[in-house]
Amino acid sequence: MIVECTADADPRSVQRLVDHLRSRGKLVHWVHGPQPVLVCPDERDLDPRELQAWPGVQRVIPIRHAFQLASRDYRPEGTKIRVGDIRIGDGEPVLIAGPCAIESRTQLLETAHAVREAGAHMFRAGAFKPRTSPYSFQGLGFEGLTLLAEVRAETGLPVVTEVMAPEEVPLVAEVADILQIGTRNMQNFSLLRAVARQPKPVLLKRGMSATIEEWLLAAEYVMAYGNFSVILCERGIRTFERMTRNTLDINAVPVAKRLSHLPVLADPSHGTGEAAYVIPVARAAIAAGADGLLVEVHVRPEEAWSDGRQSLTPEAFARMVREVRAVSRALRMIQ
Amino acid sequence: MIVECTADADPRSVQRLVDHLRSRGKLVHWVHGPQPVLVCPDERDLDPRELQAWPGVQRVIPIRHAFQLASRDYRPEGTKIRVGDIRIGDGEPVLIAGPCAIESRTQLLETAHAVREAGAHMFRAGAFKPRTSPYSFQGLGFEGLTLLAEVRAETGLPVVTEVMAPEEVPLVAEVADILQIGTRNMQNFSLLRAVARQPKPVLLKRGMSATIEEWLLAAEYVMAYGNFSVILCERGIRTFERMTRNTLDINAVPVAKRLSHLPVLADPSHGTGEAAYVIPVARAAIAAGADGLLVEVHVRPEEAWSDGRQSLTPEAFARMVREVRAVSRALRMIQ
Amino acid sequence: MIVECTADADPRSVQRLVDHLRSRGKLVHWVHGPQPVLVCPDERDLDPRELQAWPGVQRVIPIRHAFQLASRDYRPEGTKIRVGDIRIGDGEPVLIAGPCAIESRTQLLETAHAVREAGAHMFRAGAFKPRTSPYSFQGLGFEGLTLLAEVRAETGLPVVTEVMAPEEVPLVAEVADILQIGTRNMQNFSLLRAVARQPKPVLLKRGMSATIEEWLLAAEYVMAYGNFSVILCERGIRTFERMTRNTLDINAVPVAKRLSHLPVLADPSHGTGEAAYVIPVARAAIAAGADGLLVEVHVRPEEAWSDGRQSLTPEAFARMVREVRAVSRALRMIQ
Amino acid sequence: MIVECTADADPRSVQRLVDHLRSRGKLVHWVHGPQPVLVCPDERDLDPRELQAWPGVQRVIPIRHAFQLASRDYRPEGTKIRVGDIRIGDGEPVLIAGPCAIESRTQLLETAHAVREAGAHMFRAGAFKPRTSPYSFQGLGFEGLTLLAEVRAETGLPVVTEVMAPEEVPLVAEVADILQIGTRNMQNFSLLRAVARQPKPVLLKRGMSATIEEWLLAAEYVMAYGNFSVILCERGIRTFERMTRNTLDINAVPVAKRLSHLPVLADPSHGTGEAAYVIPVARAAIAAGADGLLVEVHVRPEEAWSDGRQSLTPEAFARMVREVRAVSRALRMIQ
Repeated sequence: MIVECTADADPRSVQRLVDHLRSRGKLVHWVHGPQPVLVCPDERDLDPRELQAWPGVQRVIPIRHAFQLASRDYRPEGTKIRVGDIRIGDGEPVLIAGPCAIESRTQLLETAHAVREAGAHMFRAGAFKPRTSPYSFQGLGFEGLTLLAEVRAETGLPVVTEVMAPEEVPLVAEVADILQIGTRNMQNFSLLRAVARQPKPVLLKRGMSATIEEWLLAAEYVMAYGNFSVILCERGIRTFERMTRNTLDINAVPVAKRLSHLPVLADPSHGTGEAAYVIPVARAAIAAGADGLLVEVHVRPEEAWSDGRQSLTPEAFARMVREVRAVSRALRMIQ
Repeated sequence: MIVECTADADPRSVQRLVDHLRSRGKLVHWVHGPQPVLVCPDERDLDPRELQAWPGVQRVIPIRHAFQLASRDYRPEGTKIRVGDIRIGDGEPVLIAGPCAIESRTQLLETAHAVREAGAHMFRAGAFKPRTSPYSFQGLGFEGLTLLAEVRAETGLPVVTEVMAPEEVPLVAEVADILQIGTRNMQNFSLLRAVARQPKPVLLKRGMSATIEEWLLAAEYVMAYGNFSVILCERGIRTFERMTRNTLDINAVPVAKRLSHLPVLADPSHGTGEAAYVIPVARAAIAAGADGLLVEVHVRPEEAWSDGRQSLTPEAFARMVREVRAVSRALRMIQ
Repeated sequence: MIVECTADADPRSVQRLVDHLRSRGKLVHWVHGPQPVLVCPDERDLDPRELQAWPGVQRVIPIRHAFQLASRDYRPEGTKIRVGDIRIGDGEPVLIAGPCAIESRTQLLETAHAVREAGAHMFRAGAFKPRTSPYSFQGLGFEGLTLLAEVRAETGLPVVTEVMAPEEVPLVAEVADILQIGTRNMQNFSLLRAVARQPKPVLLKRGMSATIEEWLLAAEYVMAYGNFSVILCERGIRTFERMTRNTLDINAVPVAKRLSHLPVLADPSHGTGEAAYVIPVARAAIAAGADGLLVEVHVRPEEAWSDGRQSLTPEAFARMVREVRAVSRALRMIQ
Repeated sequence: MIVECTADADPRSVQRLVDHLRSRGKLVHWVHGPQPVLVCPDERDLDPRELQAWPGVQRVIPIRHAFQLASRDYRPEGTKIRVGDIRIGDGEPVLIAGPCAIESRTQLLETAHAVREAGAHMFRAGAFKPRTSPYSFQGLGFEGLTLLAEVRAETGLPVVTEVMAPEEVPLVAEVADILQIGTRNMQNFSLLRAVARQPKPVLLKRGMSATIEEWLLAAEYVMAYGNFSVILCERGIRTFERMTRNTLDINAVPVAKRLSHLPVLADPSHGTGEAAYVIPVARAAIAAGADGLLVEVHVRPEEAWSDGRQSLTPEAFARMVREVRAVSRALRMIQ
């Protein structure tokens, strides 16, 4: 159950409500945002009408899931997240493209111009790279962030980049328009709390073997600690199939859209691991209702330092843009 | 490597080629169809030009996969399978709909009329049901086949139905226009051989934990024993995710289309297990390049004897038809 | 709920009980064995004491699972299956060893003598081989059965061999002491019914992606159609791990032993796919409570036509026997 | 390839070797420990004899895996890790037991005394708990560490406890004898680097969907950044099976022992999720060659704040100790 207070509610009166609920043996989590929000996951024996009557209470919303703030019950109309002029979750698919890793100024600028021209709304590139082996290229780090800031200034494209450690959040948040939590960190709870305590939107990739419920509960961590701008991203799960790097869980798109009000993107690059399959799976994700795509594009995939195999060329990306737009337009026209 | 002989090739001359290859230590599999086809999976040290020169040889096709006849190398242009006036694999998505199980004459006829009206090209319904428990409803069996024949006669819709045992193949093949091999039987090799030895097309569902390669090798069994009319059907794989009954492997659609020339359908009903997700996933499958859909529709899902939870109502099916057609049309227009 | 009748119960009186239960809307399955057994999976509103009072009724056993005859509730003391002098499920681990496939008379005899000497109780070898590709060696078939009969006569070892099709059951049952249902056929229901209708014990391998519940329900098919001598065999499940061919589910051993009264074997050869891991995993299975092992042994693994990589040499098998016996003895001594 | 230098090697001479390798295009990773160790993962075109001749070089070891320092090639004799008087990896299984979470001083002390009496060598309990939901009990945090220090002082048992964030490493390392990295953090690379930079041994749980290779590469991170005292712990992987919380990958025990020199523990509590299966699976792990066990024990499992279902009572734990010792002794006697 969620108890939303008015923005001007008297904190003492909110505290009294908290004390009251606790005295009845309930766990209460107070989210300190622009307006006080109380989360009370166990709603047995609580009467919404009684709580509604407390001073400062605006709305009382029963929730049917373990995740509360992330549940569609809380915001049936869906959430739109604004980044500059772009609104994620607003019908038009948002296309975020760029290389896996920042390799150099030239590579970055060249790719950014190419994807912008092809129709990308935002740019993505990794300065900090989570790599399975300590001996693989780990990203350019803060030097990469500087390059990213430059590209952002020059192309006007908002940027998405991954953050891997709580202590790096402030610096990454200075440059990035959206902070990405990678698949390996979906349950890195101290990192989730760190990105919750800054205002930039958070793109939360599904853990490669996380259930949809665990994914929504990870989003709940970010929201419970104060940041309601969470964008979900399905990026493929780990299965027994070996022809593809991961198995993009297409079901997860309508499931997450139905259970949660948060926008849902898909990443067909990691979801397939092979450039030849990225475009059809990108079309599928949009057809399934995804609010946008996160796609790896490299000006010369065969020279990429990482993930070259799954990167589109700018030309292929342009074709993808045309096709996903055709799908999206056709569906909006008949609905 | 595949060696295709001319339809009028002298069997003795084909036999000499077989003997020659065997004398060189090669396994040779002779497919006896309208024209002799030799499969020689190990092509090391074989010179296509030399074989091309043998009397009766029409084409020699190197194949880069363990599956040979099912490989796209064999028929780069793709295979179209004709059932009455319908051609599966010909651009327009083929829609096959009907109830999970045949329950009664009324239910069957009512559903068949409803799906035909909504735009279905073919009808599906199970007379023999593979059930996890021996105590669950096992289908009406041969009685169900009779009802199916009646529906076929009355509605003009070709029918797809499952066959579960080699000895039942002849009777099922009398009624069915397409014989379905269920997910649990994908590697029931005696059944695969039995359906290979009759002329009706075979709809081969992917095993719920079969790799794509194993699936194509199962198709290869059917082809190697003489039936080249195989239709693949992705129906969801088993993963750790519990919000959905299976995980429809959307990647499998473009992978199978690229590696094989056979048509590929998708079954969003079993692929999700929940009516609320069938339509978005159906749209996704078509957007990913599937040649059609196999969908469970029941006139009263809440009364269905099996799979009610994942069955669409006729109204929802009609909406699905409109939406998948919109996706399909949009993609054909820009390509 | 299971209603066990006395061996001399009057069939008419049993029929009246069946009619009574059906009139109350219950599904009743009548198992025709040495004594009539009625299975009534839905026991709501049934009073055991009332049923107990019917003429001919010996015992009424409430069952807490979907599987009924296979449930430990039915036979809390556990089931022992006798094959010649050997009793499976009687404390001493039963060791079944032999090559994957029957290749030749010499290979077969040599291996049989070697494993007998090393301590094997039974011999295993495949005449019919389920192979992923139609072009792989499919076994010697009936010729292989003849060789198997010879080995059996010469060494005195009872034999276990796989049967793959209902029509082959009678011939296989003539030679085999135990009929094996392979992992790909665990849900081949017509095959399950066919082996149920002959008296030899059935070794039921777990499907490589079957849940334990599905496995016990497959055993239930065999029992429901009249054959109560079912031996379960855990042989590894399909997971994302790639260092081993399968993942032997060690948990499945105590789970199956607790939920079912049937004996449980383990197959560390398929469970690991690599000779180097067979012995430690064999020890583990016995330590976890398995009633025996099914192990691939080849006199010259490097020359095996199939599964050479996971086959033990006779010497390694002898070492395995010593080690699993040490584990088994140690555990029986302290219990 | 690993190049081990002598403890007294001149750093300038080591640097010259590093420069030489880099000039040949090789990546070189310098581990600064008691003696300089150079890791050069790409050994193509490098001649061990040539490198052996450089001043200060003690040994040159070719490695056949992506993981280098963790590979058994590096230390064929295996690694023993000393904690007080206990040596992990030295034949005798090391038993680490205690509650999932620290709940109170009483609960902690009571359990610690009980497990010590029953034969535990070390105590485990969590002060920081990684929980799927932000609303679940998150552990007592630093207050819990204080209690843990008290228990350690009173019982003399060394303690293992989880650390979840880089910034908490110093404080946890003050109290803990072994720092545990939980399954969700196996690829939290900044945390791996943080525990690498302090001297206490690290117990690295396998990620619940990590391959064995990824697990060993996670161990490699800790070693590459200077801490060679890594203990591996198999704790169950995520599969489709639903009767158990996880599937303990018993194969992983011999695989990890063969590929790596590091000690390997097993956690049958998380590996099964159910107290009834913990003891048989504990026996299995020891029989498979594990160097010890990590087991959840609670004085009153039914009252536990977390993981009660999988916790043993002290009595059950005492039985487990007897049984695993019997298995271990039996195997050491015949080898």
